[in-house]
Amino acid sequence: MIEADDREDVRITFEDLKSLLRAIFVSSGTSLDTAYILAENCAGCERDGALSHGIFRMPGYVDSLRSGWVSGQAVPAVERFGPSFIRIDARNGFAQSALASADPMIRRAVRETGIAIAAIRNSHHFSALWPDVEPFAVDGYFAMTMVNGLANVVPHGGRQAVFGTNPIAFAVPVECSGPLVVDQATSVMANGEVRLHALAGKAVPNGTGVDRDGKPTTDPHQILAGGALNTFGGYKGSSIALFVEILAGAVTGGQFSFETDFTGFPGAQTPKAGQLLIVIDPSWGGSANFTSRMALLCRQLLDAGQDRLPGARRFANRAASGRSGIPVKASDLQRLRLMACDQNTQT
Amino acid sequence: MIEADDREDVRITFEDLKSLLRAIFVSSGTSLDTAYILAENCAGCERDGALSHGIFRMPGYVDSLRSGWVSGQAVPAVERFGPSFIRIDARNGFAQSALASADPMIRRAVRETGIAIAAIRNSHHFSALWPDVEPFAVDGYFAMTMVNGLANVVPHGGRQAVFGTNPIAFAVPVECSGPLVVDQATSVMANGEVRLHALAGKAVPNGTGVDRDGKPTTDPHQILAGGALNTFGGYKGSSIALFVEILAGAVTGGQFSFETDFTGFPGAQTPKAGQLLIVIDPSWGGSANFTSRMALLCRQLLDAGQDRLPGARRFANRAASGRSGIPVKASDLQRLRLMACDQNTQT
Repeated sequence: MIEADDREDVRITFEDLKSLLRAIFVSSGTSLDTAYILAENCAGCERDGALSHGIFRMPGYVDSLRSGWVSGQAVPAVERFGPSFIRIDARNGFAQSALASADPMIRRAVRETGIAIAAIRNSHHFSALWPDVEPFAVDGYFAMTMVNGLANVVPHGGRQAVFGTNPIAFAVPVECSGPLVVDQATSVMANGEVRLHALAGKAVPNGTGVDRDGKPTTDPHQILAGGALNTFGGYKGSSIALFVEILAGAVTGGQFSFETDFTGFPGAQTPKAGQLLIVIDPSWGGSANFTSRMALLCRQLLDAGQDRLPGARRFANRAASGRSGIPVKASDLQRLRLMACDQNTQT
Repeated sequence: MIEADDREDVRITFEDLKSLLRAIFVSSGTSLDTAYILAENCAGCERDGALSHGIFRMPGYVDSLRSGWVSGQAVPAVERFGPSFIRIDARNGFAQSALASADPMIRRAVRETGIAIAAIRNSHHFSALWPDVEPFAVDGYFAMTMVNGLANVVPHGGRQAVFGTNPIAFAVPVECSGPLVVDQATSVMANGEVRLHALAGKAVPNGTGVDRDGKPTTDPHQILAGGALNTFGGYKGSSIALFVEILAGAVTGGQFSFETDFTGFPGAQTPKAGQLLIVIDPSWGGSANFTSRMALLCRQLLDAGQDRLPGARRFANRAASGRSGIPVKASDLQRLRLMACDQNTQT
């Protein structure tokens, strides 16, 4: 993880950054709705120090939109297929827009039945997963989600990429505390982190991945140029990657990571895959005091010596950004302003 | 994994082994229903070469039942709390009995709504998880489950045990093939495997666990005697262990792994925790041909060089046991017969 402090230069407020990103999205051809959703998401990652999904991603968003590979105007089709079962055709748009469209229905389902499952297909996901689950935990629910992606991860014992980095996230409310939020790739390293290492000219640790011939390498460029990442945790991590591939890629009716084909869409970067979300109201489960039980578990983890609870670093970054603005390199900010301008000129 | 071939000696049929185990359970004080369920489960593990949950576990079952810690007569209370939401109070009995009681309701819920969640509390689980999910996959459903246990696993970065070995399992149907079934502890090694290593006098690999002072050790006896296991896959595996602890221990209204207190129950070994099960009908999710999609994914994994699909070894062992009987050490078989006899004498 490259820390926020490494590139502190100028400060921008969350609202100003969102406005700037919205302008870029709209001028790249998205609807106003989608621009609001993606700008909130991307600016939120930058604010929280989740830099591999922050403004660093903007060129990828823009190039993908301009290539015609992903639709910024898609209107998702949301169906409540059963009392707890929602399925969504993102119609080749961004998963976040699909999720936002389904959000009222998901919340109604979980209020009425204690559980909601949302199966999103024909969707693109190019960001972190924690923004998709954290709001449910803020409202007292347990939520988990997963997406598959572009085939760039080798199954344990194999030689070729089959899985995407296939992240999984979950969030849970905790009494007297912010929610506990986990978001992690099932690859040894997230793809965005590999790209940050490549940009910074830093080697990745041993065991991170292989080159195009299947040979181990610590060169992030080799991993990105036809090579692949390993799964975390050997065969057990590979099983978790498989779990994500099945739920996000198959149960949703989406595509598998190895089925993405960018041919004919130069510049396209967003994985077209699927996303599954499950939200549970813990008060239905048999615990009368779920959030205080979670507080007990968190205290136990800290007492056992765990130095930080999942999500805590992001919350600290968020608080700091709220006090003194989001630190951004001046050159990056200028680049964003030019992107908005460049796009406006073209349309 | 200690292989079936290591201890081949005599052969017993699945039916005969089940009868013998049933006699032991009944004479240890279980109801006939519970005896049938646990014998089927334990004999099935032995048959499939899942030896760490086979007949090796019988003394632990018997001692736990005789200690009064777990009830072999418990009648679970099953409630359909919502169209998709089933909650079960196992009433201090075995989770497998609770699940069997709820099975018709779970199947009705998934048929009617496409998803079922079963939250089991006040339950003991002393076996593998694959028997709890495989039958759903055989019937065309995706199923996942998880249980927490006894605190014997250190969270990543910590010094004291908080988690149980917290296994997670999932099963999924595959066209023209047996189901794909994953069952794995979130510790580096399953506790039963550590015990098999201790019995065999074999050291465990580096990184498996720590002694009672939190120092790394490869001595299985040190790990079992007040020491603890590590989670698999560093902090990411630790997050998966946390995921299991939250869903199985808290969402169900069960106990956390660190809350088990055997005091007053000498001989007790079964963890009193919780279990969560989610079953999904993939035909509700947006895929018109789910099982053939799964076949495509399996072919891709094999083509990428993965040498074996999850569950395949157990299925091969099962087929071999069906042809020529289950291989068991003569001395183990004699011990089982004496256990049944010994218990009968006492009651």
